[in-house]
Amino acid sequence: MWSTIKEKLRTLKPARLIVMYYFIAITLSFILLRLPGVHIDGQYINLIDSLFTAVSAVSVTGLTVINVSETYTTFGIVMMMLILQLGGIGIMSLGTFIWLLVGKRIGLRERQLIMTDHNQYNLSGVVKLIIEIIKILLLIEAVGALLLAVYFTQFYETWGEALLHGVFASVSATTNGGFDITGQSLLPYANDYFVQTVNIFLIVLGAIGFPVLIELKQFLSNKNGAFRFSLFTKITTIMYGILLALGTLLIFIVEFNKRFEGMSWHEAFFYSLFQSTSTRSGGLVTIDVSTFTEPTQLVLSILMFIGASPSSVGGGIRTTTLAIAMLFLINFSRGRHQIQVFGREIHLIDVYRSYAVIILAIMMSMLSIMMIMVLESHSLIAVIFEVTSAFGTSGMSMGITPDLSTPSKLIIMMLMFIGRVGLISFLFMIGGNNQKAKYHYPKERVIIG
Amino acid sequence: MWSTIKEKLRTLKPARLIVMYYFIAITLSFILLRLPGVHIDGQYINLIDSLFTAVSAVSVTGLTVINVSETYTTFGIVMMMLILQLGGIGIMSLGTFIWLLVGKRIGLRERQLIMTDHNQYNLSGVVKLIIEIIKILLLIEAVGALLLAVYFTQFYETWGEALLHGVFASVSATTNGGFDITGQSLLPYANDYFVQTVNIFLIVLGAIGFPVLIELKQFLSNKNGAFRFSLFTKITTIMYGILLALGTLLIFIVEFNKRFEGMSWHEAFFYSLFQSTSTRSGGLVTIDVSTFTEPTQLVLSILMFIGASPSSVGGGIRTTTLAIAMLFLINFSRGRHQIQVFGREIHLIDVYRSYAVIILAIMMSMLSIMMIMVLESHSLIAVIFEVTSAFGTSGMSMGITPDLSTPSKLIIMMLMFIGRVGLISFLFMIGGNNQKAKYHYPKERVIIG
Ligand SMILES: [K+]
Ligand SMILES: [K+]
Repeated sequence: MWSTIKEKLRTLKPARLIVMYYFIAITLSFILLRLPGVHIDGQYINLIDSLFTAVSAVSVTGLTVINVSETYTTFGIVMMMLILQLGGIGIMSLGTFIWLLVGKRIGLRERQLIMTDHNQYNLSGVVKLIIEIIKILLLIEAVGALLLAVYFTQFYETWGEALLHGVFASVSATTNGGFDITGQSLLPYANDYFVQTVNIFLIVLGAIGFPVLIELKQFLSNKNGAFRFSLFTKITTIMYGILLALGTLLIFIVEFNKRFEGMSWHEAFFYSLFQSTSTRSGGLVTIDVSTFTEPTQLVLSILMFIGASPSSVGGGIRTTTLAIAMLFLINFSRGRHQIQVFGREIHLIDVYRSYAVIILAIMMSMLSIMMIMVLESHSLIAVIFEVTSAFGTSGMSMGITPDLSTPSKLIIMMLMFIGRVGLISFLFMIGGNNQKAKYHYPKERVIIG
Repeated sequence: MWSTIKEKLRTLKPARLIVMYYFIAITLSFILLRLPGVHIDGQYINLIDSLFTAVSAVSVTGLTVINVSETYTTFGIVMMMLILQLGGIGIMSLGTFIWLLVGKRIGLRERQLIMTDHNQYNLSGVVKLIIEIIKILLLIEAVGALLLAVYFTQFYETWGEALLHGVFASVSATTNGGFDITGQSLLPYANDYFVQTVNIFLIVLGAIGFPVLIELKQFLSNKNGAFRFSLFTKITTIMYGILLALGTLLIFIVEFNKRFEGMSWHEAFFYSLFQSTSTRSGGLVTIDVSTFTEPTQLVLSILMFIGASPSSVGGGIRTTTLAIAMLFLINFSRGRHQIQVFGREIHLIDVYRSYAVIILAIMMSMLSIMMIMVLESHSLIAVIFEVTSAFGTSGMSMGITPDLSTPSKLIIMMLMFIGRVGLISFLFMIGGNNQKAKYHYPKERVIIG
């Protein structure tokens, strides 16, 4: 029977494996969240809300229809952390373990998911790499948890409570889970720059992409200086930095005389920086985003739609997709069809992929916004915010999540799922097998734009 | 001196010629609208509003900060019609005349603007073709004017008045100008299916694209049946039809129990059909669009953003751009990189173009929405509606146009201009000369989406 499963897995396409992994992870998480002892006595959570929480946690989004601290026991909260790890570290480590398990030779595409262009990894190298990924992430989480737990001792009566809050906050930030057990995200720490700075570092390290972390580690341990960062690392890191800075700047400027009126510059700056970081897909907030003006909410929505780096705990169309679209546009307007950057040429197929991802993401988001607008009676901006937050697996919300009807909850769940899996995987899953055209038709031009 | 101008024109790129034509047309229109006798005595129109009206009329958009019938004399209204012709027929006929004038050999791209793939046209053929375009359009306008003028005699006291209203309505509909001299668009004819049907036909004939009209004429005059419609005509016409039907259906469904409550099915159907037609860029309305629900307003915005066929009087990203994006997505999800349709293969460069147009259009619209949101205090949907209406040169509005501040008016003017000129022309104008890469860099893959 085991060999039948192995055989079945062997014939699956990688994209389908990823999708399948998440289906299994969601089912498992759903079961974990229905275990006896998970809920606080007297708290009744219906099945759809448990499913919603499971999907939100596995996709490390953080949109929630319930209040975690008022719903789950300490045991339940530990389960939540487990699910966040399952989702956050999952795709990179466990996913690759599955491939190893079924003895499938790690092909180009699969290897790309863990490393862009370093061909030196053989099977045992991949195992080492995955262990390294897990080690790095657990290390980051441990350092974050330690810092926060020790700091939290001043706010909580017992060491145990401080530890629980510290560990949960660190896991939620590093996996970009966006959940909280304070009942009000990081609002209690709106003026605590230490907690915010730690959280920002954890969120960035989780969302910057595992290949970047691995390469950074290699760079730091490589004393002779011959190390070359991959094109992927350069592009994604620069784009991440641009988006973070641009988001901070835009929030700061737009809200300067509005929401930030009367605040000191550093208060306003930290509010801007933290919320900008959260769109890249942390999801934690230090301010009620529904109190921002609409232009800011729109900026946040666009940033969430873009999302984080590929091969990270974040979602959205991903930084590289936007980067390639921008590079393409610049080159095209200059009459060039090759994209040259950092002394390298972007492969044509990646330009195609970015196009497909952008078109599909826009169509999907538009359709979701429209459907939820028809189903609910919330303001347009609140719905746009909710949809982009789900697709970008950011998890920020203007507060409408618990009021959604079941059909809308299902739409949001689907968006979180697709946002996490990534549109490219989703596209190949729905699209079926690769096939080359067997013959060519004559070409004919069409007038465009 | 004349030869110097000819020499200057000869060295210009076609895209720059188109842009230049519109600059000249706007300047001329602005002067026409400032002539003595144009304004009704006592009506003071400031320069920015005259410029806005000129840009709106030349780009045949129809967004207006003034009430035409209360502002302009009959002479002024005749000037308006002249400007609409300048804008509507302009790019196709006068634009090509300029090329002929300067003796420039009609190259592939220029010929495509009047005909996609029929290589049989030499210089004198092009002259014939342009004359044919003008003849066809004037014929359509004349038939429309006659039908409407005769019909209008029942509403107006004098034949002269009926004629003026008939001619203006026909010109405004055929050029997709979207202006009215009733002071309230076609709302007075909300239950007059004859006037609406005539208008729908005129709008569609103007927005379906000149190549389609020419090919249709050739097809009808070609008795032996050997005529083959071009790929362009097939794609644009089918997409036009799909958008028209889909728009009608969506408005009908969404508003059925809302705005259309208590109406007969044919009333609701005609409201849906007419407003759907107008997004493809007619701009005339039979209902106050601000009374629709937000999902409908969003549907209308998306439809206006898409716009009409290329080489037509409409704007937006154009039907073919969307069609190629959709075809690309379908083929890509099946693992194919060639787009095959109707026994033809789409050229790679056209896929690139559609990508560039879509990315640029979205960025431009987003930026405009954001800026106007910061500048004004209108609802998000009203601003989205206004921006997409300007870019799609549709001209429908939720009523905020006259209240816009000068900076916002300038943004809307720029959008109308770019929407009319077309993003491809705009892109090549800002991008400078074509240049081939002189050397290739090594290719490197990047993780997408
Ligand atoms: K999140
Ligand atoms: K129009």
